[in-house]
Amino acid sequence: MTVIPKSHPRYQSLLIREKLVKGFDAGLVAKEGLLAHGRGEAFDYLLGETTSKSAQKALKAAAASMILSKNPVISVNGNVAALCPKEIVKLANIVQAKIEVNLFYANQKRKQSIVATLKKCGAKQVLGTDPKSSRRLAGIDSARRIVDKDGIFAADLVLVPLEDGDRTMALRKAKKKIITFDLNPLSRTAQTAHISIIDNVVRGINELAQLCKKYSTKNEAELKKIVKNFDNKKNLEANILEIKSNLNRRLRIA
Amino acid sequence: MTVIPKSHPRYQSLLIREKLVKGFDAGLVAKEGLLAHGRGEAFDYLLGETTSKSAQKALKAAAASMILSKNPVISVNGNVAALCPKEIVKLANIVQAKIEVNLFYANQKRKQSIVATLKKCGAKQVLGTDPKSSRRLAGIDSARRIVDKDGIFAADLVLVPLEDGDRTMALRKAKKKIITFDLNPLSRTAQTAHISIIDNVVRGINELAQLCKKYSTKNEAELKKIVKNFDNKKNLEANILEIKSNLNRRLRIA
Repeated sequence: MTVIPKSHPRYQSLLIREKLVKGFDAGLVAKEGLLAHGRGEAFDYLLGETTSKSAQKALKAAAASMILSKNPVISVNGNVAALCPKEIVKLANIVQAKIEVNLFYANQKRKQSIVATLKKCGAKQVLGTDPKSSRRLAGIDSARRIVDKDGIFAADLVLVPLEDGDRTMALRKAKKKIITFDLNPLSRTAQTAHISIIDNVVRGINELAQLCKKYSTKNEAELKKIVKNFDNKKNLEANILEIKSNLNRRLRIA
Repeated sequence: MTVIPKSHPRYQSLLIREKLVKGFDAGLVAKEGLLAHGRGEAFDYLLGETTSKSAQKALKAAAASMILSKNPVISVNGNVAALCPKEIVKLANIVQAKIEVNLFYANQKRKQSIVATLKKCGAKQVLGTDPKSSRRLAGIDSARRIVDKDGIFAADLVLVPLEDGDRTMALRKAKKKIITFDLNPLSRTAQTAHISIIDNVVRGINELAQLCKKYSTKNEAELKKIVKNFDNKKNLEANILEIKSNLNRRLRIA
C-alpha cells in the first residue's frame, strides 16, 4: 500500500481511490468500476472536491423523500460496497430501507462478496441474489433488468448511487421515485433521476443519513414542502454553473 | 465480453473502454491505468468526444515538429499500448522515430507484454528494456527516471502520450521538446509540454500520422512557420473555453 502524505493537495481523493482499489482486490469492484471511479474523480476535481450548496439542497430533498417513502430500497453495486458499506447499512436502518445488490456487470461471485461485505457491516438482509425472487424490469436489456420482487420491484422509492443511465430510465419508467448520487450533472442518470445529488457518495452518504435522522421527527406536511420546493432541473443547472465557475478560477491560476 | 448496443449514445467511448479492459486482461495496463482512463473519459465527454479546433492546431504543430526533429522518440506506456499500438508503429515509421517503453508503475513482465504487442504490430525495435542501456533523468524519483541511452536520453523530441506531470517536467528540464496527448487541459503535463494535444489519443494519433505524411513533402521553412505560429498557453486557454462552451450548450439542452 502506498503511503499518501497528508500534505498532498488531493489527500482525501487518493484515500478514496485506495478504498476502491482495495475493493477491486477483494473482488467487490469490477474493472469497469475502476474506470467509472476515474470519471467520478475528474468531475469531483472540477467541483472542487467539496459538497456544494446545490448538493446540500438535493440531500435535503432526498432525506425528506426517503422518510416519506413507504417502501424505500437502496441499490448497491460494487463501487458503493467498496466505498461506503457501513454508511449504507446505517442509512438503511434509519429509514427502514431494504438493501438490494444490483450489478451492471453481473457476476454471482462478486454479488456474494458484496453481500458478505454488507452483512459484515451489520446488514440483516440483502436482496438480489435469489433467482426465485427475480423479476424483470421493462425497457432494458441484459442482466441489469433483473430485480428482486421483494426489493426494487415492489419499491416506491429507489436510491441508486453511481447508476447507469439505461437502468435509471427503466426504473423511472417503472414509476419508482429515483434518487441518485452522481458526480456528473450532465449524465443521463443525473438528468433522469427525480433527485440527483451531485456529490462524492463518500462525502454525501453520511450527510444523507444525518439528515434522515433529523427529519424523522418532522411531520409529513413539512417533509412534503421540502420535496415540493426542490427542482432537480434547476439544481442541476446550478451544479453546472459551479463547475464553470471552478474552471474560471483555475483558468486564472493556470 | 459485454455486447455494447450501437444505439448507446456513448458507443465509441465504450468501445475504447473495452480496448483498455482487454489490455488490462492481457497484462499491458495497470489498475491505476484503468482509473486514469476513467478520468480521461470524463474530460473527453466534456470536450464533446470530438477533435476540437484547438486540438487540430496542436496536431499540426506536433506534426511539423516531428518532421523537423533529428531524433524523435515515442514513449509508450500500458494504456497507449492497449489503445493504439498499430497507430504508434505507423507514426514511428512515417517520421522515423524510435519507440521506447516507459512505465509509471514499473514492472518487467508488463514491459515485456507491451514490447510483444508493439512487435506484433510491426515494430522492429522497442527500446527501454535493456538494463545496460539505461540512463537516469535528473530531477525525478523512482523507476520513472530511467530512460534508454539510445532512446529518450538522446532524443531532441519526445512524444509522451498520457504522461504523468513529474515525468513531463523532468523531460522538459532535460531540454527535450515535449509533445503530449492529454485530455485534461489543466493537468501539469498539459501545462508543462511544449505542444499539448487535448484530444483522445485514439482519435488524434491517426490524424497526427496523416499530417506527418502530408508534411513530409513540405520544406523546412514552411514547417518552422507552423511551429512558430503555435502558442501552447493560448491553445490550452482555447481548450478550456471549449469545455465551457460545451457546458453552456449542454446546459441549454438539459
